[in-house]
Amino acid sequence: MSLFTTALNAIAPVDSSLLDAAQSRLDNKTKPIGSLGRLEEFARSLVAISGQDLPDLSKKVIFTFAGDHGVVEEGVSAFPKEVTPQMVFNFLRGGAGVNVLARHAGAEVRVVDVGVDYDFDGCPGLIHKKVARGTRNLANGPAMTRDEALAALEVGIELANTCKAEGVGLVGTGEMGIGNTTPSSAIIAAIGGFSPEQVTHRGTGINDQALQLKIAAIKRGLAVNRPDPADPLDVLTKVGGLEIAAIAGLVLGCAANRIPVVADGFISTAGALIAAELHRDVRSYLFAAHESVEVGHRFMLERIGIRPILNLDLRLGEGTGAALAMHLLESGVKILAEMATFEQAGVSGQQP
Amino acid sequence: MSLFTTALNAIAPVDSSLLDAAQSRLDNKTKPIGSLGRLEEFARSLVAISGQDLPDLSKKVIFTFAGDHGVVEEGVSAFPKEVTPQMVFNFLRGGAGVNVLARHAGAEVRVVDVGVDYDFDGCPGLIHKKVARGTRNLANGPAMTRDEALAALEVGIELANTCKAEGVGLVGTGEMGIGNTTPSSAIIAAIGGFSPEQVTHRGTGINDQALQLKIAAIKRGLAVNRPDPADPLDVLTKVGGLEIAAIAGLVLGCAANRIPVVADGFISTAGALIAAELHRDVRSYLFAAHESVEVGHRFMLERIGIRPILNLDLRLGEGTGAALAMHLLESGVKILAEMATFEQAGVSGQQP
Repeated sequence: MSLFTTALNAIAPVDSSLLDAAQSRLDNKTKPIGSLGRLEEFARSLVAISGQDLPDLSKKVIFTFAGDHGVVEEGVSAFPKEVTPQMVFNFLRGGAGVNVLARHAGAEVRVVDVGVDYDFDGCPGLIHKKVARGTRNLANGPAMTRDEALAALEVGIELANTCKAEGVGLVGTGEMGIGNTTPSSAIIAAIGGFSPEQVTHRGTGINDQALQLKIAAIKRGLAVNRPDPADPLDVLTKVGGLEIAAIAGLVLGCAANRIPVVADGFISTAGALIAAELHRDVRSYLFAAHESVEVGHRFMLERIGIRPILNLDLRLGEGTGAALAMHLLESGVKILAEMATFEQAGVSGQQP
Repeated sequence: MSLFTTALNAIAPVDSSLLDAAQSRLDNKTKPIGSLGRLEEFARSLVAISGQDLPDLSKKVIFTFAGDHGVVEEGVSAFPKEVTPQMVFNFLRGGAGVNVLARHAGAEVRVVDVGVDYDFDGCPGLIHKKVARGTRNLANGPAMTRDEALAALEVGIELANTCKAEGVGLVGTGEMGIGNTTPSSAIIAAIGGFSPEQVTHRGTGINDQALQLKIAAIKRGLAVNRPDPADPLDVLTKVGGLEIAAIAGLVLGCAANRIPVVADGFISTAGALIAAELHRDVRSYLFAAHESVEVGHRFMLERIGIRPILNLDLRLGEGTGAALAMHLLESGVKILAEMATFEQAGVSGQQP
């Protein structure tokens, strides 16, 4: 059986009795019932996902998947394509936004080449999982073959399996790929039945002219490829990206291994959306780090049915938002682990 | 000259050229311009407030001020009054929510008795600054004398001055006082001209009947005391609280000393609002940790003109939200300090 099929078969609903048990413990802490709001939601979800009374989040990993996109030849990005490998080197040296914020969160960044159009030649520190040297131009035909999409997806699943073996308690998603808001917009347009105008935005900061080129490219891509919204793998293959496929696989693999996973922004959520379409129980294992400035993001989050944790007008990607959200998820667990109960503290309870 | 007058006289606008200089440095970091959204806002504000190129936030302190409220005799709270001193002991033992979240943020909690109706008798670890054993019932007359309000305010100013001497880089506000959402609602009603119904909510979790008692108490308090909305000290004196006064003083003192200060939730923001009404430049030194579930909070934040950082459905107080927001404020500074520039990383810039 393939890694993909094995992962899909392993995904099960979380045990709701664990949610209730965790909430009961929270209700005994020295605070009015429910007064820590979403921190309590995070705590009980993390208990139910992990099956641990006190989830161990000491090992946290953010995977930053890099891939290139044939569609950049349509003029859809403000940055030249060579920035993808340049940023990979920046990640490896620890100088990018995700490195800074992951260090602050106590998380490790692992950089994965799943589809960069550059020969990294055994470069140390990088996880070498190149499936292809970028996608083909989705405006002219399928971005990938189904085999390529599946191979990239299984890269993510394999990495999630490794996390399980290592005892990683919380995984974050991230990405780098010049042009990758274009396939992300195409994915939510295809799956949600939206027009490209509704879900396409300025990415790293394109002007009005480039925005029109981007919308036109997505329109052509959807018309030429006719992705089947009922077949998430078809959508991924035809209008997705290699790093987006790897993120979808990572999210699936985390759900299969009962590891909580926090999706970063717009592009990461495109990957998470594919995973959530592939299996309805994925969303119970998934957190949305933040609501991005990209207009299509909200539609993705609504489709999955998850509420973002932060809203800080972010639009960088890489895993930066995931790193920030990790601190808050961990806060929930610390409340459960470290707060005194009414009895321990000798504090009078709420009056009936 | 009193501590109060000295602090008011020392408050000046931040230097906007420092904001611009910080933004220029952020624009050279390896990311699309503005793509880290509010983290960039935090970074440039912290530079302008502190006057430091790289604000040093290594010392972070949250002050949790405790005080009692005569208005509890109106039946406005779900918890008995003895919970105020019980929670003070919980803070001192490190078992409360604010202790847990402050540890997670790398901040120190300092607990201040400014008005608890309990004799702590030199108890170690507590900062003893009791002005009175609680306020009087604001529904029947002034909660404090003007001298009491000023004395409590100066407790906060004095603690801010101490922080300056110690090199504290970021201060958070917090509070504990059974019944203290009632004076907080009364303050925003008086200053903003709102009806008590518009700005009064369930606090720690009161039922419908207690909510009606609470609204009635505030109505009577406003009618009996006629606080002058143009005189913030009059509002504070007549319908405020000792811990709210101390928070107002802490915020004023931080602004006077150019120390960034993050207000926690509803009650803390009532204190911050008094400070912001006393001096128009206070808000440049002030961050709002989160938007509370309490309905009056939004009106306070709008009146001050600050946007909350988090929205996690919190309603605990103590300084819990301030602790969470500190991690995000510090993230902004780390971006400025640690991210590579395009030149350092050899990354191509944005195309024109």
